[in-house]
Amino acid sequence: MLPEKMLAWGYTRNCIREVMEYGTIRKAEIGAENVYDYSIGNPSVPAPAGINETIAELIRDEDSISLHGYTTAAGLPSLRNAIAKDLNDRYDFGLDGEKLYVTCGAASSIAISLRAVLFPGDEVLVMAPFFPEYRVFTEASRGEIRIIPPREDFQIDMELLSAALSERTKAVIINSPNNPSGMVYSEETLRELAEILRRHEEKIGETIYLISDEPYRELVYDMDKTPNAMNYYDDSIICYSFSKAMSIPGERIGYVAVSPRMKDCEAVCAAVKGAGRALGYINPPSLFQRVIERCVGQISDISKYRANRDLLTSGLREIGYECVDPKGAFYLFAKALEPDAKAFCEHAKRYELLLVPSNDFGMTGWFRMAYCVDNDMIRRSMPAFRKLMDDYRK
Amino acid sequence: MLPEKMLAWGYTRNCIREVMEYGTIRKAEIGAENVYDYSIGNPSVPAPAGINETIAELIRDEDSISLHGYTTAAGLPSLRNAIAKDLNDRYDFGLDGEKLYVTCGAASSIAISLRAVLFPGDEVLVMAPFFPEYRVFTEASRGEIRIIPPREDFQIDMELLSAALSERTKAVIINSPNNPSGMVYSEETLRELAEILRRHEEKIGETIYLISDEPYRELVYDMDKTPNAMNYYDDSIICYSFSKAMSIPGERIGYVAVSPRMKDCEAVCAAVKGAGRALGYINPPSLFQRVIERCVGQISDISKYRANRDLLTSGLREIGYECVDPKGAFYLFAKALEPDAKAFCEHAKRYELLLVPSNDFGMTGWFRMAYCVDNDMIRRSMPAFRKLMDDYRK
Repeated sequence: MLPEKMLAWGYTRNCIREVMEYGTIRKAEIGAENVYDYSIGNPSVPAPAGINETIAELIRDEDSISLHGYTTAAGLPSLRNAIAKDLNDRYDFGLDGEKLYVTCGAASSIAISLRAVLFPGDEVLVMAPFFPEYRVFTEASRGEIRIIPPREDFQIDMELLSAALSERTKAVIINSPNNPSGMVYSEETLRELAEILRRHEEKIGETIYLISDEPYRELVYDMDKTPNAMNYYDDSIICYSFSKAMSIPGERIGYVAVSPRMKDCEAVCAAVKGAGRALGYINPPSLFQRVIERCVGQISDISKYRANRDLLTSGLREIGYECVDPKGAFYLFAKALEPDAKAFCEHAKRYELLLVPSNDFGMTGWFRMAYCVDNDMIRRSMPAFRKLMDDYRK
Repeated sequence: MLPEKMLAWGYTRNCIREVMEYGTIRKAEIGAENVYDYSIGNPSVPAPAGINETIAELIRDEDSISLHGYTTAAGLPSLRNAIAKDLNDRYDFGLDGEKLYVTCGAASSIAISLRAVLFPGDEVLVMAPFFPEYRVFTEASRGEIRIIPPREDFQIDMELLSAALSERTKAVIINSPNNPSGMVYSEETLRELAEILRRHEEKIGETIYLISDEPYRELVYDMDKTPNAMNYYDDSIICYSFSKAMSIPGERIGYVAVSPRMKDCEAVCAAVKGAGRALGYINPPSLFQRVIERCVGQISDISKYRANRDLLTSGLREIGYECVDPKGAFYLFAKALEPDAKAFCEHAKRYELLLVPSNDFGMTGWFRMAYCVDNDMIRRSMPAFRKLMDDYRK
């Protein structure tokens, strides 16, 4: 007798990993150059040179015992101060190191934040399309997700959001730039969202935590920076990862940042620490804490992603695909050519196109392409996309 | 309104961290050389030279995108195979990589294992004295711990163990070499333990998981290797960390190994994966996965710990302290000179001796000393221990 959910989460994988693993097998069968793999969001540009240079310096200059030793659970104070300074310089949050808890990446940041604030039965609102693991992290903390479909332009549908708020609403998760849609929330969206949440907080007399999942924050192509939730709503918690902007997703380092203007800021910071302890985290990896402290603010060369975005979007539109206008992250979200996205993505495999159906992202009828790939693969895949379209036009 | 337990675990720290943090302040006040800090089990010998050499090779030779990229959740197959081979060579477990799930250290291994098998209300038996976080990890998975006091020689008291087993017993945690007592379980202890658990499994018709927490497995001074639970009991799960034997506690890498002879081995492996996902783990740190793959089997030079053990034990016994005979790990467990261990450790601060009271380890009347310290500090601390004894002899 084992807990059903643990078995289910262990035996299944999310839709993205499923397609990726099919790809691994298929590439072995027919050669990697013949498979157009748009499945996974693994950064395809190297980390900034500073990362490996800093590692080399640290192992050369620092004492092994301290370099590889335990740190405080929240991460080195000097690291937290460096992150706070970088955020304040760019966003004027007024943060200090005490409001930061450094984690093993955004996934652990979200799992920890939810565990810190949720009571059994609490509801967490998520905006479709959304990263499938939000459901796992919420249910693991005995909460329930409620899915809010987006407006046609993929901004938040405020009417649907308002209708979904209840006495049981404890948190709202947003993700901008968005995986899988590439959408970036406008200032207007964040302002309206904040206003609605504030009104609902007053109505129910309870805090509603806005959890802003921001691993793609720096990956934007048509603007200097994205508007940030913490500048609009005081009860905000940022969950960040250095994975995408620094191309180090395997190293597992990110943070939770609690707004200094939150009513119960100090208690939330304590609960985050407690939740980290409960989930078995001791401290974030110590070598990479020092690396981030010295490299914070460096980002990978993202011009390749911009070129990919432009090539893929214009190519697909020319063929006749309908795509969400991608503003950030490295995903393109497009309409499937039949209502059943799973059947569509299955069909696309005939042309060796590996696409992720939108179902697990909380929407039907769409598919996701991760364009952190070789530019040349995009070019070579266009005839396949054309044949796929032809099948549906017959 | 925030969950009470998360607040409690966030606001309090365990007794070890409390003493350690007092030490940090005290050292700033009177100089580090004047404080005899026996509080924390931070390895005091450097990592094997191979660790930093391997890091240097990897960043020089490997492609950044793959080196710092995502891996499968359970860790690279090549790493898991290397670990399985090393274990099989030494212990003949018959493991393969599929039975291993690489984690962010022993704490996450235990948190994940308990989450994988516990239902709400299940009981977990722990052998006093025990690592205080067992309570946190058990309660975080909605289980309850039951504490079994040890025999006088700190082996398991089989009568008390038998009496504590119930219909609700789901797991037993053992830790040999032990933190805080330094005790190593004998073959006879493990054989008897296995026999009792097997009989109880038959009686209640349910699996009882023996979780063997083994971060100190290689730190033994009077024998080649410790007897291992997995050789005696088929329903064993090993939780390991490379922290102590490789002196890399901050890097957070370890594993869960499920016995290949476990009845429901495959399901438990799946539940472990599901629990890792639930707790927000994506994959263990990728650079260190490669480091461990190449360095598995290397251990730090532990002769310094042996010398420390001998010096501290003989010195204290000469003064008149009663100590558990320390066989492994780097802790000495000794009897407090008054029944209230907290009052005793508080009193010891007058002589700048930082000792950890046994209360949080599930026993009263003892104290722990971590002897992973400078040999010279041990020497210099002896007059302080003598003065402390004098106070109680007056």
